[in-house]
Amino acid sequence: MATQPDASALVISPDALLEHWRGHRRLTRRVIEAFPEDQFFTFSVGGMRPFGELALEMLAMAAPMVRGIVTAEWNEYAAGEAASRGEILRLWDEATEQIDSLWPRIPPERFQQTMTAFGQYQDRVYNLLLYVIDNEIHHRGQGYVYLRALGVEPPPFYVRD
Amino acid sequence: MATQPDASALVISPDALLEHWRGHRRLTRRVIEAFPEDQFFTFSVGGMRPFGELALEMLAMAAPMVRGIVTAEWNEYAAGEAASRGEILRLWDEATEQIDSLWPRIPPERFQQTMTAFGQYQDRVYNLLLYVIDNEIHHRGQGYVYLRALGVEPPPFYVRD
Repeated sequence: MATQPDASALVISPDALLEHWRGHRRLTRRVIEAFPEDQFFTFSVGGMRPFGELALEMLAMAAPMVRGIVTAEWNEYAAGEAASRGEILRLWDEATEQIDSLWPRIPPERFQQTMTAFGQYQDRVYNLLLYVIDNEIHHRGQGYVYLRALGVEPPPFYVRD
Repeated sequence: MATQPDASALVISPDALLEHWRGHRRLTRRVIEAFPEDQFFTFSVGGMRPFGELALEMLAMAAPMVRGIVTAEWNEYAAGEAASRGEILRLWDEATEQIDSLWPRIPPERFQQTMTAFGQYQDRVYNLLLYVIDNEIHHRGQGYVYLRALGVEPPPFYVRD
């Protein structure tokens, strides 16, 4: 019980963090699929953005963040556009493939380094990655409320496969 | 660019993960404070639980999870009760103190070990901790919708100090 804190302890490996995120991305994909097509870009509660817009924000952050971390070249942050829920799902799957292929190219020492993401957000790389994942969880939680308000049962939060 | 993945790369240190979580806990505390007292245990959207109940769930998971990870002794999961938003804030601050004092006692090798939290949820310790943090973010995101529906501006997501 008198163990000293060890700053170099392995909390989570790069592979395990990717797998953790992939689980979240699978769940978020199911939340996108759960939305009625005609509500995806229109329905919201309390004047907030519809879930389609939130999904576009997630897309604009996820693969571009990993690409910037790997290449150290950053474009400005810019949310894209999509005409349908089906198009978002296609973009989602493309982004997943991009993240999977970029991730192993993150140099091991990079996670502890400081970068300026999108030319604007300066932080340690692990914080930049956690921010993207946390932002996805945050907005997906809002999507759960939208679904419940629409009378749709959301997918279980704890199922990530 | 030909860097090989390194399973032992330091993604995040134990101290940094605690600080990350503390930032989230500070934000969640502000969300609790932002609720009108008379809506905290009653208001919800789509038949979901009011934010007071979600906060009690967070309290039942957070410090008890860290205590179980440190001591390897687990009680059954049990959400507590509270009579007011003020009482939740007091319990929140007590839990923060408990987490802060327990965290440095997590043995460094423990993060990669498998435990059965609350006698029920078996996973690697880093996943158990991330689950508690993610669950807080998920339900706090729902609290943001409740606040907006009540006409209250929630605290900014990106401010964690």
